Amino acid sequence: MIKIALMGHGVVGSGVAEILEEKKQSLAQKAGDALYCAKILDLREFPDTPYADRFTKDFNDIAEDESIQIVVEAMGGLHPAYEFVKACLEKGKNVVTSNKELVAEKGAELLAVAKAKNVNFFFEASVGGGIPIIRPMHLCLAANRIDEIYGILNGTTNFILTKMIQEQMTFDAALSLAQQLGYAEKNPAADIDGIDACRKICILASLAFGRHVYPQEVYTEGISNITLEDVAYARNGGYVVKLIGQAKRLPDGKSQVMVSPALVPVENQLSRVDDVFNSVLIKGDETGEVMFYGKGAGKLPTASAVVADVVHIAKSPSTSQSLIWEDSAADTVADASAYRNAFYYRLQGPISKEQIEALWGTVTVLSRQGQPTGEVAFLTGVMPESQAESAEKKLAGKAELLGKIRLLG
Amino acid sequence: MIKIALMGHGVVGSGVAEILEEKKQSLAQKAGDALYCAKILDLREFPDTPYADRFTKDFNDIAEDESIQIVVEAMGGLHPAYEFVKACLEKGKNVVTSNKELVAEKGAELLAVAKAKNVNFFFEASVGGGIPIIRPMHLCLAANRIDEIYGILNGTTNFILTKMIQEQMTFDAALSLAQQLGYAEKNPAADIDGIDACRKICILASLAFGRHVYPQEVYTEGISNITLEDVAYARNGGYVVKLIGQAKRLPDGKSQVMVSPALVPVENQLSRVDDVFNSVLIKGDETGEVMFYGKGAGKLPTASAVVADVVHIAKSPSTSQSLIWEDSAADTVADASAYRNAFYYRLQGPISKEQIEALWGTVTVLSRQGQPTGEVAFLTGVMPESQAESAEKKLAGKAELLGKIRLLG
Repeated sequence: MIKIALMGHGVVGSGVAEILEEKKQSLAQKAGDALYCAKILDLREFPDTPYADRFTKDFNDIAEDESIQIVVEAMGGLHPAYEFVKACLEKGKNVVTSNKELVAEKGAELLAVAKAKNVNFFFEASVGGGIPIIRPMHLCLAANRIDEIYGILNGTTNFILTKMIQEQMTFDAALSLAQQLGYAEKNPAADIDGIDACRKICILASLAFGRHVYPQEVYTEGISNITLEDVAYARNGGYVVKLIGQAKRLPDGKSQVMVSPALVPVENQLSRVDDVFNSVLIKGDETGEVMFYGKGAGKLPTASAVVADVVHIAKSPSTSQSLIWEDSAADTVADASAYRNAFYYRLQGPISKEQIEALWGTVTVLSRQGQPTGEVAFLTGVMPESQAESAEKKLAGKAELLGKIRLLG
Repeated sequence: MIKIALMGHGVVGSGVAEILEEKKQSLAQKAGDALYCAKILDLREFPDTPYADRFTKDFNDIAEDESIQIVVEAMGGLHPAYEFVKACLEKGKNVVTSNKELVAEKGAELLAVAKAKNVNFFFEASVGGGIPIIRPMHLCLAANRIDEIYGILNGTTNFILTKMIQEQMTFDAALSLAQQLGYAEKNPAADIDGIDACRKICILASLAFGRHVYPQEVYTEGISNITLEDVAYARNGGYVVKLIGQAKRLPDGKSQVMVSPALVPVENQLSRVDDVFNSVLIKGDETGEVMFYGKGAGKLPTASAVVADVVHIAKSPSTSQSLIWEDSAADTVADASAYRNAFYYRLQGPISKEQIEALWGTVTVLSRQGQPTGEVAFLTGVMPESQAESAEKKLAGKAELLGKIRLLG
């Protein structure tokens, strides 16, 4: 019997407890041994669960119990999850987490502790919920140099953008609907400001490039400035607006890592990833492009990814899976002002195409139904971010900047 | 140093040798030890390769060499691949193969030998080329009961159908083009008759349901009867025609496994998988639907999947990964006549909608541009295959059967 402790009995944690209980038999068969959830850490009480007797409010009941081999962290947040996870690893326990903030902020350190103790620190559920991404990238694409990753990493913002695109709902109305349906929190900042997507692209970039990418190094822009006007221009140009997390290996060895809304061409598979679905595209030098798609969140999908990590550890408990990346060097992520992108702009004012092209070079002008006089929208060619910004500064007196979105590319 | 032998220096085999050579350093880092291709079995000679001195024409040079821990089988075909692989496993060597025919015909037996010898028999490259599918299914979805798998498993037929759908090319013209481009063999039967897709769905079904599904148990229909008329009716009904492999868990514990052309609704992600791309959708009871997408063939994508299997084994050589299924019971796969499907029909003759509905129940009539008098196409509701067939038999004297395609569902 392999004893497991669970820290946090919230949405994901209770799902883990349920799956471990309900699928006892098939999991034992797959793991080669029975998996038993021996302790559950939560400050609340859950007298109606079948494992009501196994709850504890004291972390030391888990940390000091040498019979516990695997600890599942599903508390969320950075503290005390970080301290608890680190203590468990230092005690020689394997740890599985679904906590993206923890991995994005402390991954390199915790992986190093795990390696030193010859235990595993797994986090498949931290990106894409139930969609297999971390392990396929790490194990199945092992013969590849990963050159680029980009994807739709946040279901809440994708739901909102889908409603804006398909039903011409305003951002505010779509956000309200997402909140009513339980897809968005009352305080939706972590989703709509791109913070959640940023944590996920940090984890994927760290794994792909072998060096920790921290959230504070990543240019992050949310979707709250996207308007129905932008959506309409994009549609007429053959694009949809999506919140994209991307990590790209640059020729100089640094990387471009960012989260921002982007115009995705309708021919691109990502343009058809709608509602709360997530999708990640990975470009490897041998395999080319592979894509993973599914629901990126939800209690049971996420919990099932956690349980799969537990099963994997149970099968090979002392195997160091060489899932590791180094701590960040100062120059891992390139300066965002040097990133090269093409841009969509929407302006208001008496500016001619000639004046626009004097600032941004050749552009493609877009149109929309009901376009008011004096509004102009266009797509630029690829240029450094700094060049686009200096063009914007020269607008003063000629036109007002109403919208700016990058093109996926 | 971990010594590897390679059997077969064809397209995939030479790709494996190249990747092992070119990526020596990064692979050693990932595997925790240097990977060295010590012997290559091929009846031909390759004097211009950097490893010309390591070729052998004698299998025993590999089988009897105790220093070789991992054997890669990339010969293709059933014989002598089967005998060689079995002998290697019995000698306690790990085996990695890209050979779908071998796994589809002999998987249960070879997995049992591997288990008995505590070595691994891995075959990630046998389905979907470089797309990670087998390992994600086996490891990442371990907490799921897999209820259904369906997908586009053959790139050649998908290329042909894409040309028919997007460019109104006839089947014959599209096949010729595929042959010119090297996507189809001179003798294209294994692809266009669905045999290749059948082997792949057998492997996925065996893994999902835990019992070997043999190709001869699987109803298999190719694409050579699909016409541009069918494609046109399908388009007007909101469908595209794709060659679909599917495996479904039935309520009675048996399974429905088949390969056939199918009308895929345009809202379904699979409808947008074009050209030589492959895609597999897997429905798990916890995770819901996840999709994997990429190029399903090609030298380097397939070879990179083989090398990833090698790296995985190098990291945990003595770990039995519990990747196993039992040999088939007689009643694993349900009788195809009992499968329930909805159908598209195209008929020619003086038959009224009332007469059609008397035979098939309520139908939805389709139309196309340039539809000749006396041609009628329609979609039926879901019914057992046997019921659809008995309706067909009653057509005699009323109409001629020109086309019949199942609906995905």
